[in-house]
Amino acid sequence: MSKGLLFVISGPSAAGKGTICKNIIKEMDIDLSISMTTRKPRPNEVDGKSYFFVTQEEFDEVKNRGGFLEYAYVFGNYYGTPKDMVIEKLNKGRDVILEIDIQGAMQVKKTYPNGIFIFILPPSMEELRKRITRRGSESLEAINERLGEALKEVSYIDKYDYCVVNENLEEAVDRVSSIIKAEHSRVTEHVYELIEKYKKEIESVKEE
Amino acid sequence: MSKGLLFVISGPSAAGKGTICKNIIKEMDIDLSISMTTRKPRPNEVDGKSYFFVTQEEFDEVKNRGGFLEYAYVFGNYYGTPKDMVIEKLNKGRDVILEIDIQGAMQVKKTYPNGIFIFILPPSMEELRKRITRRGSESLEAINERLGEALKEVSYIDKYDYCVVNENLEEAVDRVSSIIKAEHSRVTEHVYELIEKYKKEIESVKEE
Repeated sequence: MSKGLLFVISGPSAAGKGTICKNIIKEMDIDLSISMTTRKPRPNEVDGKSYFFVTQEEFDEVKNRGGFLEYAYVFGNYYGTPKDMVIEKLNKGRDVILEIDIQGAMQVKKTYPNGIFIFILPPSMEELRKRITRRGSESLEAINERLGEALKEVSYIDKYDYCVVNENLEEAVDRVSSIIKAEHSRVTEHVYELIEKYKKEIESVKEE
Repeated sequence: MSKGLLFVISGPSAAGKGTICKNIIKEMDIDLSISMTTRKPRPNEVDGKSYFFVTQEEFDEVKNRGGFLEYAYVFGNYYGTPKDMVIEKLNKGRDVILEIDIQGAMQVKKTYPNGIFIFILPPSMEELRKRITRRGSESLEAINERLGEALKEVSYIDKYDYCVVNENLEEAVDRVSSIIKAEHSRVTEHVYELIEKYKKEIESVKEE
């Protein structure tokens, strides 16, 4: 059985990666990895669904035993991807999406270079500012910090395989879903099995 | 304006690449390149639509002035892709599909390495034999020659970017169409223009 594929979806905060991922897992046969965080839950965020919300001590325990595929410190909080859960799914042939920030994505690129890296871009910085503002949970200073961070992040785009501009949600979801399908048609080691199969078949087929 | 993408679709004869391409150009905004050939038209093949049917002299004239993106000699006939028409479309931003055999594809890989190479595979050699036989226009000897050729061709698969097994036509078309969409989201030079745009925007956006 062939392994599942790991899709790493990242991009500036408020570019819309969360909404895109939610739609992708609704439409496709793929699992979303759930991160662990020390951040306080926002209203309507559910523990074990949005994130595993943990204390700093709990987070450090996993970190210290090398239990994260990646972890990052962002805007005062830690976020990490529990390694075991992801690897187990991939080994079972399941595709997995990681929706993580740029720091995390760069770590995964080192620890799991076979991952497929997709960058979600906002249509413009002005639109990004509007989306951050609309969330309403940030101070003006925090908003400006996020925008500065976003610009720094965008310069990492050449480390990614794909970029998708999220101007229209439906179109962006369609693009990400096409990427996932297309990657399953990539020429990789599995084709050599196919070639062997054809070789075995050919003589019997020709003799008939 | 960014250039169009060139998709090279090949695979063993009777693997179904022609039918897949016909469906793709119906569904997507992409042009199919029309080849020139010295082969005699089959019933219901139209000159200028299926192929440009030409004499050996006419073919040699284009060949001698370097007017082919690729050309090949297959089963007693010459086939070639007129270069000018393809390049002109790409420069206008149009995507182009070349439906060509393996010899041709390998030439295009040298002359146009930015092309995206898709290999169409039959589900099995037995199925391939059935499909060739069903066409009815081939002798038993020719069928066996085609099968031997198919096996040789399959070993070129690692020169391709993608492979699509044509077991179910609708699914195969969906896969090829996903590849075409996904390739438009690839991180290429055009993203640097985007980054510049964001850089210019960021200061004005932050000051507000």
